[in-house]
Amino acid sequence: MQFPRIGLFPKSAGADIAETLNHLAEFLTKRKHKLFIEQSNAALLSHLSVTALASDKIGAQCDLIIVIGGDGSLLKAARAIADNNIPIIGINRGQLGFLADINPQELEQTLTPILNGEYYEEQRTMLCAQIVQNKQLTSMHLALNDVVLHHGYIARLIEFEIYINDQFVVDHRADGLITSTPTGSTAYALSGGGPIVYPTLDVITLMPMFPHTLSARPIVVHKNSKIRLVITPSNRIDAKISCDGQTHLSLTANDEIHIQAHTNSLRLLHPKSYNYFAVLREKLGWNINLTK
Amino acid sequence: MQFPRIGLFPKSAGADIAETLNHLAEFLTKRKHKLFIEQSNAALLSHLSVTALASDKIGAQCDLIIVIGGDGSLLKAARAIADNNIPIIGINRGQLGFLADINPQELEQTLTPILNGEYYEEQRTMLCAQIVQNKQLTSMHLALNDVVLHHGYIARLIEFEIYINDQFVVDHRADGLITSTPTGSTAYALSGGGPIVYPTLDVITLMPMFPHTLSARPIVVHKNSKIRLVITPSNRIDAKISCDGQTHLSLTANDEIHIQAHTNSLRLLHPKSYNYFAVLREKLGWNINLTK
Amino acid sequence: MQFPRIGLFPKSAGADIAETLNHLAEFLTKRKHKLFIEQSNAALLSHLSVTALASDKIGAQCDLIIVIGGDGSLLKAARAIADNNIPIIGINRGQLGFLADINPQELEQTLTPILNGEYYEEQRTMLCAQIVQNKQLTSMHLALNDVVLHHGYIARLIEFEIYINDQFVVDHRADGLITSTPTGSTAYALSGGGPIVYPTLDVITLMPMFPHTLSARPIVVHKNSKIRLVITPSNRIDAKISCDGQTHLSLTANDEIHIQAHTNSLRLLHPKSYNYFAVLREKLGWNINLTK
Amino acid sequence: MQFPRIGLFPKSAGADIAETLNHLAEFLTKRKHKLFIEQSNAALLSHLSVTALASDKIGAQCDLIIVIGGDGSLLKAARAIADNNIPIIGINRGQLGFLADINPQELEQTLTPILNGEYYEEQRTMLCAQIVQNKQLTSMHLALNDVVLHHGYIARLIEFEIYINDQFVVDHRADGLITSTPTGSTAYALSGGGPIVYPTLDVITLMPMFPHTLSARPIVVHKNSKIRLVITPSNRIDAKISCDGQTHLSLTANDEIHIQAHTNSLRLLHPKSYNYFAVLREKLGWNINLTK
Repeated sequence: MQFPRIGLFPKSAGADIAETLNHLAEFLTKRKHKLFIEQSNAALLSHLSVTALASDKIGAQCDLIIVIGGDGSLLKAARAIADNNIPIIGINRGQLGFLADINPQELEQTLTPILNGEYYEEQRTMLCAQIVQNKQLTSMHLALNDVVLHHGYIARLIEFEIYINDQFVVDHRADGLITSTPTGSTAYALSGGGPIVYPTLDVITLMPMFPHTLSARPIVVHKNSKIRLVITPSNRIDAKISCDGQTHLSLTANDEIHIQAHTNSLRLLHPKSYNYFAVLREKLGWNINLTK
Repeated sequence: MQFPRIGLFPKSAGADIAETLNHLAEFLTKRKHKLFIEQSNAALLSHLSVTALASDKIGAQCDLIIVIGGDGSLLKAARAIADNNIPIIGINRGQLGFLADINPQELEQTLTPILNGEYYEEQRTMLCAQIVQNKQLTSMHLALNDVVLHHGYIARLIEFEIYINDQFVVDHRADGLITSTPTGSTAYALSGGGPIVYPTLDVITLMPMFPHTLSARPIVVHKNSKIRLVITPSNRIDAKISCDGQTHLSLTANDEIHIQAHTNSLRLLHPKSYNYFAVLREKLGWNINLTK
Repeated sequence: MQFPRIGLFPKSAGADIAETLNHLAEFLTKRKHKLFIEQSNAALLSHLSVTALASDKIGAQCDLIIVIGGDGSLLKAARAIADNNIPIIGINRGQLGFLADINPQELEQTLTPILNGEYYEEQRTMLCAQIVQNKQLTSMHLALNDVVLHHGYIARLIEFEIYINDQFVVDHRADGLITSTPTGSTAYALSGGGPIVYPTLDVITLMPMFPHTLSARPIVVHKNSKIRLVITPSNRIDAKISCDGQTHLSLTANDEIHIQAHTNSLRLLHPKSYNYFAVLREKLGWNINLTK
Repeated sequence: MQFPRIGLFPKSAGADIAETLNHLAEFLTKRKHKLFIEQSNAALLSHLSVTALASDKIGAQCDLIIVIGGDGSLLKAARAIADNNIPIIGINRGQLGFLADINPQELEQTLTPILNGEYYEEQRTMLCAQIVQNKQLTSMHLALNDVVLHHGYIARLIEFEIYINDQFVVDHRADGLITSTPTGSTAYALSGGGPIVYPTLDVITLMPMFPHTLSARPIVVHKNSKIRLVITPSNRIDAKISCDGQTHLSLTANDEIHIQAHTNSLRLLHPKSYNYFAVLREKLGWNINLTK
């Protein structure tokens, strides 16, 4: 049996996915999978016996994670199980996601072959950001989409330097910098004019936000690059850092952020029929002919 | 005598312009102009008898304002004297500014004809932003560059609607919106890809920042437009507003910002030889041929 | 009677609008308007007695022009009647145009009030481009959207200088330059990242195409500006110029293009309910929420 | 002895590099290397006995190619020797190039260690474009920078479809498409807003030019992708294709361009001290602080 133990990650405050969650749990129970659920949302599963676990404990007990929610819920689950090297799959809320691409209306038809081993697996690079203050590593954070360095205050430039593999690249006065995985290239970075990067490429994109230097452009580097961002000594305001929009830390002059690809990539499963470009067309509206 | 009473606005914490300031004051004293100085920097003028006044009082007593500092100092002075309808001129710190274009090294040669009435005067549109909360006008703020609506937190979209002359334009999920005068078109808005707008045009530019809608573009509207930004009821986080990067207010769902051109334009004086496009080339590096 | 004499401009090769055209002609005949038709498409009007005239003769005989077709057909008619100072209105082919905004399905309801004098009139700036070769004016061309200077060969930069009111602005090595009216701001220039300009503003936008200087940006100048483009002496390949995509002329080193607003603006009529921003939302897909 | 046989590729019409070329040839002759020269420029080498060969013959006889000229000359030589799998190095004309990075003033100091085997070697992806007309392969072309599909006429959109690995990606109405190697990312594609791609990455970038779809963005795909561009049946005008700006072919409806990475990468040599980011800063002017 493929995936004997399955962990469920429903979106938080997810009343609207309770029906899908219960439907899914019944379907999996019938198939004799042993089920676990992220504990903060366990109440959504009304009548089945399912083991509730903390999000950081669930990965070690399971062979597969199923997320029920949107791309944001999958990002969160992906960070929680990053060290467990188990696959993940996402059921959306009726609207196609970039990551969560299983329609809840076709849950059984779509999941059955996947659970039988018929799936398409992608390795999605994750980022690990280490915060270094006074030359001490003070914290570490994971991201599947992006690590964003940003001014903490409106309308204030921050000053920082970028180093790649210890080579100085450029110093910026800017609103910030988006360091993005291929997965993140269709998220926040896209709004700023960044390129779309095929999701399994071994690259990382660095994109300055509102840079003072008008000739600045996004830079695409190898996934194995050691990226180092240094808040310049002359920087006068707090800078903030955020990972997948979820972590918020303050940085000051001389603090550093070291960003590298995480040791494990995320194992994202799709139906065999998965077609990234079809998702792209759908999500970006390329199918719609507006202005003849 | 042109400009019998002259008000001096040195940049704040301006030790580096003390020499220029004293040189200027001596030059003007010799010419028999009566001098005033913005009081917080009066100590920079060491040995001359000059009347110190608060920044919001100085405009009513003077016929001309001379700013010594950079564009930021001129922005500040411009807001302080916005209701006095008197002209302003800027002496920079040795590096050409977009607004402060008199070189301190050529102070006497350049100022003499201007003080004799030989100058080029530009009308620069200023913006007035009214904050409306619970249908009450809670505060008013002026800007010579821009009014920026922005998320208060990193990596969080704010949701807002734009109305022009009470016509709905678009609702945005974005990092924010820059509402910019022509003067501001070469400031913050330029970093985000906005157009360069000739400084005396009767237009206002609205530029979404990192908009979720990929087909969003800067929109240029008439200066007489009544711009109304409404924080949508569903917006879940604080939004911030800033005028010329100086005012910081928090806004929540249903709050409104009403933006219009200020009744008075700023009267910005230049030497007769002023050439906007030459300033542009210099400031944007168009004179430099890098990649043959 | 408003508009006693009406000229009809059907789109060329317009079999698909023959029904609308005949419907319109019958409607106008019943209302006792005297009808003219642009002669190259006169055969589309099967059974009514309508006077056929050349496109450059029709404007002098009429009080109103009605275009049946898309925005391209209206551009063509606008250039033909530019010197006649008569209003124009456009019936589209079932899909909203930026210019042709009357739905053929609602032809009678929409046109009746307009023909009775209940309409909203916009003044739309047109451009006049004069080609100067060996200091001689060799030809003149009108444009309602844009004058495009472009390399004649793929992957070859052209070199040219921009002057505004005889002040040097910048020299470019680029694929070309789009000089656009506000009307043209939602046409070709928009594809290149130019700003959306409210259609009745008194401005012209200059936008370099694939400029070698990475800090180049669109520049918005006053409608009264005298724009002069000079093909630099060192330019080695032919340059081409096109007006509304319709005129094609070759230019060589030292040739000049002088661009100014045409003396007459186009008088474009709309129903009283016209809302530019609604057209914009519809045409640019801003109403569609793709990526929740 | 490293590189016993060296082929020289001087830039065409290269009177200005004759001195450098002769200096180089004397230096190499002293070191006992056997020299060849691309025959069309052999006349530039006045007094040394050097074997002149056609550009497509020289690669088979040599162990190293030295280009004297700019990046354009190196592009040309690279295509000529693409099948020989030998390394290449470029001496510029006194101004740093992206590819030709050896300063002629420091020729001997810089070349000596390289010729002794102390160098940094980069594998630079080249593209091979196959033109398929009526299902027949009609021609093949190489590019180190880019394959550009473009309208042959000013102000005319072409219509084409993009397929990657036989999956449909998108159909475009646009001015054209730039398919770019990492090397080409700092050439033509950069002018259009494309990302900077680290030169040794295994990726190819597709960038639409002036696309009608406003949400179109550059797409970065794997180097092993089979890219297929199809001129759509409804396309009414000629399309042109160009490789590194050098080949010019006309295409019509239903014609296809198949683009893949060339079997051999270009072996580009640099001094050990080579630092890509330093070149980037220099070439893009990031070292210059313009607008304090």
